[in-house]
Amino acid sequence: MQHFTSAQDIKDWSLLWQKVQQVKDDSQGRKALGAGKAMCLIFLNASLRTRLSTQRAAMNIGLDTVVFDINQGGWQLEMADGTVMNGSKAEHVKEAAAVIGSYYDLIGIRAFAQLKDRDEDYQETIVQQFKKYAGVPIISLESSVRHPLQSLTDLITIEEYRKKECPKVVLSWAPHPRALPQAVANSFLEWMPHTDYEVVLTHPAGYELANEFTQEIRTTTNQREALQGADFVYVKNWSSYQEYGQVLRTDDEWIINKDKMQLTNNAHFMHCLPVRRNVVVADQVIDSSNSLVIPQAAHRVTAAQTVLELLLDHA
Amino acid sequence: MQHFTSAQDIKDWSLLWQKVQQVKDDSQGRKALGAGKAMCLIFLNASLRTRLSTQRAAMNIGLDTVVFDINQGGWQLEMADGTVMNGSKAEHVKEAAAVIGSYYDLIGIRAFAQLKDRDEDYQETIVQQFKKYAGVPIISLESSVRHPLQSLTDLITIEEYRKKECPKVVLSWAPHPRALPQAVANSFLEWMPHTDYEVVLTHPAGYELANEFTQEIRTTTNQREALQGADFVYVKNWSSYQEYGQVLRTDDEWIINKDKMQLTNNAHFMHCLPVRRNVVVADQVIDSSNSLVIPQAAHRVTAAQTVLELLLDHA
Amino acid sequence: MQHFTSAQDIKDWSLLWQKVQQVKDDSQGRKALGAGKAMCLIFLNASLRTRLSTQRAAMNIGLDTVVFDINQGGWQLEMADGTVMNGSKAEHVKEAAAVIGSYYDLIGIRAFAQLKDRDEDYQETIVQQFKKYAGVPIISLESSVRHPLQSLTDLITIEEYRKKECPKVVLSWAPHPRALPQAVANSFLEWMPHTDYEVVLTHPAGYELANEFTQEIRTTTNQREALQGADFVYVKNWSSYQEYGQVLRTDDEWIINKDKMQLTNNAHFMHCLPVRRNVVVADQVIDSSNSLVIPQAAHRVTAAQTVLELLLDHA
Repeated sequence: MQHFTSAQDIKDWSLLWQKVQQVKDDSQGRKALGAGKAMCLIFLNASLRTRLSTQRAAMNIGLDTVVFDINQGGWQLEMADGTVMNGSKAEHVKEAAAVIGSYYDLIGIRAFAQLKDRDEDYQETIVQQFKKYAGVPIISLESSVRHPLQSLTDLITIEEYRKKECPKVVLSWAPHPRALPQAVANSFLEWMPHTDYEVVLTHPAGYELANEFTQEIRTTTNQREALQGADFVYVKNWSSYQEYGQVLRTDDEWIINKDKMQLTNNAHFMHCLPVRRNVVVADQVIDSSNSLVIPQAAHRVTAAQTVLELLLDHA
Repeated sequence: MQHFTSAQDIKDWSLLWQKVQQVKDDSQGRKALGAGKAMCLIFLNASLRTRLSTQRAAMNIGLDTVVFDINQGGWQLEMADGTVMNGSKAEHVKEAAAVIGSYYDLIGIRAFAQLKDRDEDYQETIVQQFKKYAGVPIISLESSVRHPLQSLTDLITIEEYRKKECPKVVLSWAPHPRALPQAVANSFLEWMPHTDYEVVLTHPAGYELANEFTQEIRTTTNQREALQGADFVYVKNWSSYQEYGQVLRTDDEWIINKDKMQLTNNAHFMHCLPVRRNVVVADQVIDSSNSLVIPQAAHRVTAAQTVLELLLDHA
Repeated sequence: MQHFTSAQDIKDWSLLWQKVQQVKDDSQGRKALGAGKAMCLIFLNASLRTRLSTQRAAMNIGLDTVVFDINQGGWQLEMADGTVMNGSKAEHVKEAAAVIGSYYDLIGIRAFAQLKDRDEDYQETIVQQFKKYAGVPIISLESSVRHPLQSLTDLITIEEYRKKECPKVVLSWAPHPRALPQAVANSFLEWMPHTDYEVVLTHPAGYELANEFTQEIRTTTNQREALQGADFVYVKNWSSYQEYGQVLRTDDEWIINKDKMQLTNNAHFMHCLPVRRNVVVADQVIDSSNSLVIPQAAHRVTAAQTVLELLLDHA
C-alpha cells in the first residue's frame, strides 16, 4: 500500500484483514517496525479521536510522531497553481508538502470540506497535492470527501459484532444544528462493496449523496422501512450535496430513539462521534447495551495501527 | 492509589514519602515502568509548569505522552446529563472520557474554575465525570477546587528546607489585578493536616475560603501578626469565595515586601508561580536568597513523577 | 559550544564542519547521545521548518522534545526588570526561563521582531534573558535579529552545491506585501565572513540593513549588476531598518524571474521559505532545476542535528 486515502488504496483485502487480526491479537509486539522513523500529523481542523488514536497507534509500533496544527502554529497554505501570492496565504502547498516529506517518513493530513464550493471540495485538493509533492506515504485523517480511517474502523467493529451471514447494515441520516461534511457517509458507502452486508441507506429528500458513492447502494427516504430487521444502525448527519453545504431541516423527525430501534433486529447502534445527544440520538439508545460507540471509537487505534503497519511494511 | 485528584487519594503516606525520596535520589532509574504505556494530558486552560513538568516526569519513566489542548484542537465538552445538545458544545464528556480512556493508560486533566457559579465550580464536575467514565486513573492538573500536584510539590519543598520540628508555615493572601481561582490555597490547606507544621492562614476580610478547607486551620486577618516568627511564607492570591469570583480590593497593602519578611524567622518565601512581581511580591523578596520559587517549581517534576510511579505501580 | 544564538557562538569552525559531515553521512548513528535528556522548544510565532526539522533532528539522536506555544498554551511573558506587573503579562521571563531550565536540558526559543521599536528589537531581549536565567544551553529558533539555524543551513547547502573556488553568492532583496523581520538577511551576512565566497548584497534604496551586518559586505542598489555571473542567488524580503518596520514599496521590479536568472552563471536559486510565489520569485524560477529550495529546507534537519550534537557533546 503506497498511500491510505480511500478504499481504492487497498490492493490486497485479505492482507488487510490478516493485519487487523494481528494488531487485535498483539498491539505491542512490533515495536521495531517504526524505529528510526517518524510521522507528521497535520491538522487544519479539530480532531479528538483521529488525533489521539493515530498517535497511540504510532507509539505501539515505536514510530515517533509530531502533531502540527498548521493554521495555528504554521502558515496558511495556497493550493492553486500559478497564483500571485499577495494575499493572506504565506506558503504554497508545493513547498510545504515537499519540505515536510523531506523531514518525515509518513504524513497524515486532515482537511475538512469548506462546504462553500462543491467542485473545489470534491477535488480533494490538499490530499491530492500532498500525494503529488510530498514524496512519502500520505494518510488521510479525513479529507473533504472521505474519512477512510473511520470507515476501516467501522468495518472492524461490524466484523467483531456480527452474528450472522449477511447482516443488514443501515446508514441513516440524522438531524444536526450545523452544516457537516459528507465525508464519513461517503467513505462508509465506498467501503461497503468490499463486504457481504445487506446495505441500506436512508435519508430525507434533499440529502442525496454524490452518485459515485451511492450507485451500488439501496436507498430509501423511509427511515422506518430501512430500520426494519436491521442488525447494525449507523447514524450520521451530513449537509446537503445538491444544495451544497445547506442545512435543509432541523426538526427532530429523524432522530434515532428507542421506538425506532424496536423496529430493528435488536440492532447495534453505531456513530463515529462526536455525537450530539438528544439531537442525533436519544440518551436511551446511546446509553443502552446495544450502543457500540465506545468500542467502535476504541477501534480507531486498531485501524490506524493496521494502516501504519501496512505502509511501513511496504516502505 | 487509583486516582490523584486530592489529598484524600493518598492512602499510604509513608509509601508516598518513600517514593518521593526514591525519585529525588534517582529520577532516571525506572525507565521500564512506563514502557508500552501512554498518558494523555488534557488542557482546558493555560499552563506552563504543569504542562512541562508532567511531560518531563513521564519521559523520566519511559511513559509516552500526548498533550491535547481540547478547546483549540478538539471539541467543546458538554458536562450536564440529559441535555439536548443543540448549542455550541459538540461532544459529551461521557463519550470523550470513555474514548480517551480507551486509548490511553492514564489521563491528566486541567479545568479551572469559571468563577461564575460557585456551586457548579465546587462540584468539580469535569474531574468527577472523567473519574466516572474514563475507566483509567485520572490525575488532576488543577481542578476548579484543588491543585494537588502543586500541594505535593509544596510539601516536598518545605520538607527539604525545614530546619526544625514543627516549622511555622503561613499562607498569606496577596493582591492581584484579576480574579483567580481558590484552588491552590484550598489544596494547600487540605494537605496541611497531614503534616506536623504550625499553620496560619491570613487574608483580608471578605477573602475567607470554603469552610471544608479552613475548619482545622488557625486564621487571622492580621497579616503582620501571622508573619511573626514564620519559617515559611507561602503567598497566593485568590478571588472571594463569599462574593464568588469577585476582586474586592486591588490596593497594595497586602503585598509581601522586605519589611514584612523582617517580621519572620528569616523565612523562606514560596509561591506556586506564575507570579506578578511588585504586585504580589516585591522584587527584593523574590530575588533574595530566601526565595524558594525556582527550587519549588523544579519539584513539580518530583511530585508528578512520584504520582505517576504510584499510579503505575498500582496499575 | 555553550549556546547557539549567533555565528559568534561557533568557537571551532573545523569541528562544526566535521560534525556536519558526520550528520550527513549517518543521521541515525548516535541515538544514545540524547538518552535521558529532553529539550523544550518554545514558540512565540508561527513556524513550519524550524518546528518540524528541530523535532526530527532531536528524534535522530534519541532526545525527547516538548513543543510549547507559549502565547496559546502558557502565559504572556514580561521582559523588563522592575516592572509593576499589573497588566496583561502574567509571568516574568526570569521565572519562566529558570523554571523551564530546571525541567529541560536544552531550550530552543523563537521570538520574532515586533517591528515597532528598533532598539527594543535589536536588544534581542528574550534570547538574552533566557541565556541569563535558564541555566541551560539556549538555541535560537529565530530571534528578532538573527536566524542562525537558517544561516548554518544556507552554508551547508552552498557547500554541497558549489562547483568552484570562491563562488559568487548574491543576497537579493525581493518584494513582499507584508512587513517582515531582517533576521534571515542579517544572520546570513553575519556568517559570510566565515566563508571564502564572493558575497554581494543588493537591495533598493531605503532597505539598507544594520551596519554591524553589512560593513564587510559589498553592496549595490543595482540588482542586475549584482546578479551578473552569480553562482548562487539567495532571495529574501525584509522591511526597512532605517524607517523601521516599514514596507517602502510593493511594486514587482525586484522580483526574481527567468530574465534576471539569465544574467547569472546558471546560478542556483535559494530561499529560506515560506516564499510567496510570483511575488518574490516567478514560478519559472522556483520550479526550475536550478532551484535548491527543497534540498535547502531539508538541510534544516542537518543543521539542527549538528547544533544539538555539539551542544550535547559539550554538556
